[in-house]
Amino acid sequence: MHRDDIKALGFDVFGTVVDWRSSVAREGREFGARHGVTGVDWERFADDWRALYQPSMTRVREGERPWTVLDVLHRESLAALLERDGINGLSEAEADDFNRAWHRLDPWPDVVAGLTRLKQRYILATLSNGNIALMVNMARRASLPWDVILGAEVARAYKPQPEAYLGTARALGLAPAQCMMVAAHNGDLHAAAATGFRTAFVARPAEHGPGQTTDLEPTGDWDIVASDFLDLANQLGC
Amino acid sequence: MHRDDIKALGFDVFGTVVDWRSSVAREGREFGARHGVTGVDWERFADDWRALYQPSMTRVREGERPWTVLDVLHRESLAALLERDGINGLSEAEADDFNRAWHRLDPWPDVVAGLTRLKQRYILATLSNGNIALMVNMARRASLPWDVILGAEVARAYKPQPEAYLGTARALGLAPAQCMMVAAHNGDLHAAAATGFRTAFVARPAEHGPGQTTDLEPTGDWDIVASDFLDLANQLGC
Repeated sequence: MHRDDIKALGFDVFGTVVDWRSSVAREGREFGARHGVTGVDWERFADDWRALYQPSMTRVREGERPWTVLDVLHRESLAALLERDGINGLSEAEADDFNRAWHRLDPWPDVVAGLTRLKQRYILATLSNGNIALMVNMARRASLPWDVILGAEVARAYKPQPEAYLGTARALGLAPAQCMMVAAHNGDLHAAAATGFRTAFVARPAEHGPGQTTDLEPTGDWDIVASDFLDLANQLGC
Repeated sequence: MHRDDIKALGFDVFGTVVDWRSSVAREGREFGARHGVTGVDWERFADDWRALYQPSMTRVREGERPWTVLDVLHRESLAALLERDGINGLSEAEADDFNRAWHRLDPWPDVVAGLTRLKQRYILATLSNGNIALMVNMARRASLPWDVILGAEVARAYKPQPEAYLGTARALGLAPAQCMMVAAHNGDLHAAAATGFRTAFVARPAEHGPGQTTDLEPTGDWDIVASDFLDLANQLGC
């Protein structure tokens, strides 16, 4: 691979760009304080909410329900957790606002500086399962300098389905080999590589908090393995 | 209308944001010099290329052909014009490069400064019939600070079909009344208003060159009538 062959970088977002666990826990604490909810471990609540993420997409992937954006899936998962924890009496607007915690996630410290450098040379696209509104609101709050919001909603397919990657390349008018998937998750990179994408693994060993056991190391022959987005920019000559 | 009710601005691009006529003519002169093409009035060539724009979309709008992005429609129109003018012997790559003249259009002088101010308060979305790759390449070249590329390709509908506007609002998670269409074309604003969008008319009296006779004045009761994007920013309190 020569770096000049690459025209666009497609980024996984949850975990790779933003620290969803700490951010959702922070939002949970604020929500709890606002509504008098006590006795909840908000890090665990964030983990449990995220644990419902893959199952909620499976029914869409398998065609058991029509295309449904992630905001709706997150909202359904939240309803189940609120009921489990006996958190009652919220208005729809209050629950919807808590659901938009996923629009208010903080980036890892290297992200904005790294993306700013990478943008000089490459098209920067989101390639996330998050929906467009979520990605736009997150980017504005966190100053993420995307050129374009792509991924699941535009391709109408959830990763790791091939169409999520192929539809993203097609929208950019590029061949898959001109695109590089950037992710902290080996599974995402395996699926991207199978469609012809180039691959960059960026470890995020604190994504799941202390004691993380998954995705600490690359498990494939990725084109780039980087310690963070600044290292990625260095390796790509930006 | 109160300006705080508006969350996003959706921009028409060809004519409203960029000066397609002068830019395509400039690209034509460069193309002519490169390939030894003489005796062509490139302003007229730009006008003729643009004149094929609406007819080319009509067949898609009416379902006579499946969804087709504007790059492909532009390329077909270009082939017809090259044949008409007896410009032969180009490789596919050379013709494709000339076709991407539409990716290299220059903004009107007020645009970048105006958008930069408007972005402080509003989500900035393209709401154009141009395809995603065209919009991304144009934005990177011209430093257009979009938050998100929306419009025809994401909505899978060409303006003035209602779905082009409605699909854009839906992608942003907003009601049409929370979105304002910004355009130099009264017809675009009439169609947007019919779906519930707010409207801003920005006159571009040089879009069609000297002697322009259309869209010199607002023909509807638009929420805002502005002389350029700086005036639009003033009127929206940015």
